Amino acid sequence: MSSRPLILISNDDSLTAPGIAHLVRLMRELPAEIVVVAPASPQSGMGHAITIGHPLRLDKSTLFGPDVEAYACTGTPADCVKIAKHYILKDRRPDLVVSGINHGSNSSVNVLYSGTMSAAIEAAIEGLPAIGFSLCEYGDDADFSHVGPWVLEVCRQALAHGIPAGTALNVNIPKNSAGPIQGIRLARQARAKWQESFEQRHDPYRRPYYWLLGEFVNQDLGLDTDEAALAEGFVSVVPCQFDLTSYVGLAAMAQGWQLALPASSAAAAPPQPVPGEDYGPATR
Amino acid sequence: MSSRPLILISNDDSLTAPGIAHLVRLMRELPAEIVVVAPASPQSGMGHAITIGHPLRLDKSTLFGPDVEAYACTGTPADCVKIAKHYILKDRRPDLVVSGINHGSNSSVNVLYSGTMSAAIEAAIEGLPAIGFSLCEYGDDADFSHVGPWVLEVCRQALAHGIPAGTALNVNIPKNSAGPIQGIRLARQARAKWQESFEQRHDPYRRPYYWLLGEFVNQDLGLDTDEAALAEGFVSVVPCQFDLTSYVGLAAMAQGWQLALPASSAAAAPPQPVPGEDYGPATR
Repeated sequence: MSSRPLILISNDDSLTAPGIAHLVRLMRELPAEIVVVAPASPQSGMGHAITIGHPLRLDKSTLFGPDVEAYACTGTPADCVKIAKHYILKDRRPDLVVSGINHGSNSSVNVLYSGTMSAAIEAAIEGLPAIGFSLCEYGDDADFSHVGPWVLEVCRQALAHGIPAGTALNVNIPKNSAGPIQGIRLARQARAKWQESFEQRHDPYRRPYYWLLGEFVNQDLGLDTDEAALAEGFVSVVPCQFDLTSYVGLAAMAQGWQLALPASSAAAAPPQPVPGEDYGPATR
Repeated sequence: MSSRPLILISNDDSLTAPGIAHLVRLMRELPAEIVVVAPASPQSGMGHAITIGHPLRLDKSTLFGPDVEAYACTGTPADCVKIAKHYILKDRRPDLVVSGINHGSNSSVNVLYSGTMSAAIEAAIEGLPAIGFSLCEYGDDADFSHVGPWVLEVCRQALAHGIPAGTALNVNIPKNSAGPIQGIRLARQARAKWQESFEQRHDPYRRPYYWLLGEFVNQDLGLDTDEAALAEGFVSVVPCQFDLTSYVGLAAMAQGWQLALPASSAAAAPPQPVPGEDYGPATR
């Protein structure tokens, strides 16, 4: 790369979260030209939500100093990447999109709920190399002091060797108090889930409301998972794809299902030519 | 199945949307015992968002008559399935979870943004057979009159032959005005995206705001995709997995990346035993 790479930074904990300040500081070291578009308010657990019912606001910020073009966007992490790609950087192409550093793990099934990873996956859909970084420590006072070399190493590898097409990387980093980090390990998403419950409380008007509680349960004994890597002190790197098709499932269904025409439709009119573009517009 | 199957119904267009009323009516025909837990307000585009910053409300509804236990939940589609599974149906196990019928297509990449499919995928994570149904026609006045036999056929196949573990089915149905439906086709998720732009407007106080605009672009010429099936007048059925790991990507990275220790960490302390449960709790 002849000049400094252009790096787009987003997150889900909002523009003012400590984690994104660490990521900006690290990307400066690459060195890189940096544009930040991050949510104006915390968006944890927003998954791949987008804003379609109302418009977005975009406010320029000087939070990271005069050399970093930064914006707070009132939308979700996916919205931030969309407005960055199609409005703010309309005539430029980022060399890398990084999201985070999330305050809390996005390993295993958490990737589905993660706003951090939805920003990265949205960038991947746009054909941009993208990485979501998460620290396995929750809270505003999470200790990011050890993450620097590992974040930079993953970014340098991505800039040098690329990221597989159709994927975004889900990078999780053990918390500092768990001991020295042992290295970086490629991994698959562990089969895990949240064992959940709801706690019923009553408001002062005696109406019930419910808090979601959950305990994380790793059901996967594999040594090649992100959970196993993290448990052994490694940074885990999972390439995540946005083609959700289960090809194994397709093959199983082709064998097991019997897809004859429903009886009530078997006598329907014979096939008519259907204009290719007229089966109903894709919407969301 | 000796008795009527227990079917949990949710959606993303809210409890009062016409699409879910059609689904309730159809599930009655199976015949099935029905519990409905649907969002109190529209949640289109919510992806796999969950509510973690504030509690949920749950209001019983008589909308579908005395034989259907129905609730409006103030959360997202994923929240609805969680509170149904872990609170309302804590001691019972649904035989099938159906979501929809969505007003608008959730084919190809739209599955990622879809609240309809997030309800189904949340159920699949819980190990429940789950199907998301979408009609390729947008708007409150969408014509659902032709969907009955196709929705019932997919549900009967699912009850008889099962749904592959680790997947939820993404079922899209061509709009009625496109002509008679030709059958049901198993398909893969088409490679497609939204070609997006943002329209800047100004409020009465001269401050700018931005509307997301988008044109759906199918970049996939494959005949085995959901888009191809829909274009040819077929109902498309895609088994969608929640393991996002790209195994192709993992293999490519194992070849191409060089994951030595970062220089600044090479001299770190030698490995210490790390307690398996102490690398930082999974959070979201």
